[in-house]
Amino acid sequence: MKLLSYRLNDGIYFGPKVKKEEAVWDVLRIQETLQVLPSFPGTIVEGVSLGIDFIEQIRKLVEAALKSENPNSFKHSFTEIEWLSPIPRTPKNIMAVGKNYADHAKEMGGAANSFVVFTKSPTAIAADEQTLSVHADKTSSYDYEGELAIVIGKKGKDIPSKLAYDYIFGYTIANDLTARDIQKRHQQYFLGKSLEGSCPLGPYVVTKDEIPNPQELTVVTKVNDEIRQNGKTSDMVFSVEQIIADISKTVTLEPGDIILTGTPAGVGNGFNPPKFLKSGDIVKISIEGIGTLVNKFE
Amino acid sequence: MKLLSYRLNDGIYFGPKVKKEEAVWDVLRIQETLQVLPSFPGTIVEGVSLGIDFIEQIRKLVEAALKSENPNSFKHSFTEIEWLSPIPRTPKNIMAVGKNYADHAKEMGGAANSFVVFTKSPTAIAADEQTLSVHADKTSSYDYEGELAIVIGKKGKDIPSKLAYDYIFGYTIANDLTARDIQKRHQQYFLGKSLEGSCPLGPYVVTKDEIPNPQELTVVTKVNDEIRQNGKTSDMVFSVEQIIADISKTVTLEPGDIILTGTPAGVGNGFNPPKFLKSGDIVKISIEGIGTLVNKFE
Repeated sequence: MKLLSYRLNDGIYFGPKVKKEEAVWDVLRIQETLQVLPSFPGTIVEGVSLGIDFIEQIRKLVEAALKSENPNSFKHSFTEIEWLSPIPRTPKNIMAVGKNYADHAKEMGGAANSFVVFTKSPTAIAADEQTLSVHADKTSSYDYEGELAIVIGKKGKDIPSKLAYDYIFGYTIANDLTARDIQKRHQQYFLGKSLEGSCPLGPYVVTKDEIPNPQELTVVTKVNDEIRQNGKTSDMVFSVEQIIADISKTVTLEPGDIILTGTPAGVGNGFNPPKFLKSGDIVKISIEGIGTLVNKFE
Repeated sequence: MKLLSYRLNDGIYFGPKVKKEEAVWDVLRIQETLQVLPSFPGTIVEGVSLGIDFIEQIRKLVEAALKSENPNSFKHSFTEIEWLSPIPRTPKNIMAVGKNYADHAKEMGGAANSFVVFTKSPTAIAADEQTLSVHADKTSSYDYEGELAIVIGKKGKDIPSKLAYDYIFGYTIANDLTARDIQKRHQQYFLGKSLEGSCPLGPYVVTKDEIPNPQELTVVTKVNDEIRQNGKTSDMVFSVEQIIADISKTVTLEPGDIILTGTPAGVGNGFNPPKFLKSGDIVKISIEGIGTLVNKFE
């Protein structure tokens, strides 16, 4: 199931993509109108915390809509809605693994031998198709990083790596935008990774049942249709399972938390001369089975 | 005004300390019973976002209680309640400035010449008087850091340093507990700074009107009554105003956000041999005008 969040008439909603249509099911309205379920979450983070039950509830709502007199009245075309990040707000900062592909560590002048975790402010979250600033007044080295993002579905700490998949709700795509000069100046990455709009996520959260093996995906980043990154998640130094196990040794994970799994080689900083983002650039990050995250910069 | 948060009969409440008594005013119950105000926030973070109006509302509620038939029915003795962090949950990770006192930077083997900001997970927040783990299974170098903490009261970005005080709601005391081995192993500080219970805050948020100059305070940390840290906030490399200005250049600050301002010299790591925390230790951090944050370790 592909879930998205959207704004319509000042309200924030979520729902599944309608199969083979460029539209979303308005599941909250289905529930309100047809009273299919005894109860249903009001926010996607609340829903995510129900795990597989949330997916089952949504399936029942969609079935009920399809059997109703006018199924189309429960859909919104993608042209009607404003896209949001599928998780519009995470319960804590977005967590991210640094240097998790050996070739990327090398292009950044380091080695991928230790497990590095930093955070990005949730105020940096942005949406698919959103036009974002290159923050020319603050940085002259704004860089893209295409990444597979994990969406946590269950609270946990000290999670054994063999049970890690139980704690995943699904996956999305992230661009871990980074001001290289700020990142370097402040040593700790938080400030350079937290500019407004520096964490677009989306377009969907794809539930984990649709991604049988997250270590067999390709991550392709194009800038103005030039391929810059073309990595395989099989090349990760720390796997999705290890990442969840290792972070949860110190940090309690919660439903709606997002973990970025690191970026493959090919960031702007890795070229000579560097290819940083400039006004007018369009960045497209594609991960098979999830979709393509597109942002224009100005 | 000294505000605290507490648990009573499974509910989470907040209120001001009763003057000259070891008790808290149950402001929500005053409002419910006496209907003093047209509306009143249900959570302290919602209240903090109202700034000075929140303080005025609380004053009106306390006045109404004092004029009522039985003022004592609106108080809870400190012995009745379970203390919580005055801000039980921040909207994003706790932000913290590293190496903000020259003598501390030196004892850590560095210099205080760049502005370093890292984060701690909000799941690390703990309360005054709470008994905390030394996490002996995870670290052999758990260390204390007594710090002045800023509580943000207003949303803002690109805040000029001269307007910084407008964005402060008040102050509290923090112990920025750190697993030195984990901090060093992972390079980025987030994991080593985010163990459960590694961010006790309290006992109160003291509203900014009671702290005319946050750069004229002493920060004293005692371990088992031995003075380990005895610093002056006048020795900060980056002042409270500069910290707010500099962080808000990249991160949007929000009501309820907490910023730790750095620790003076005298952490356990600075001694030879190091004096890390061990089971049975009691750490007391005192800042004049705010109070004393006490935690026992086991």
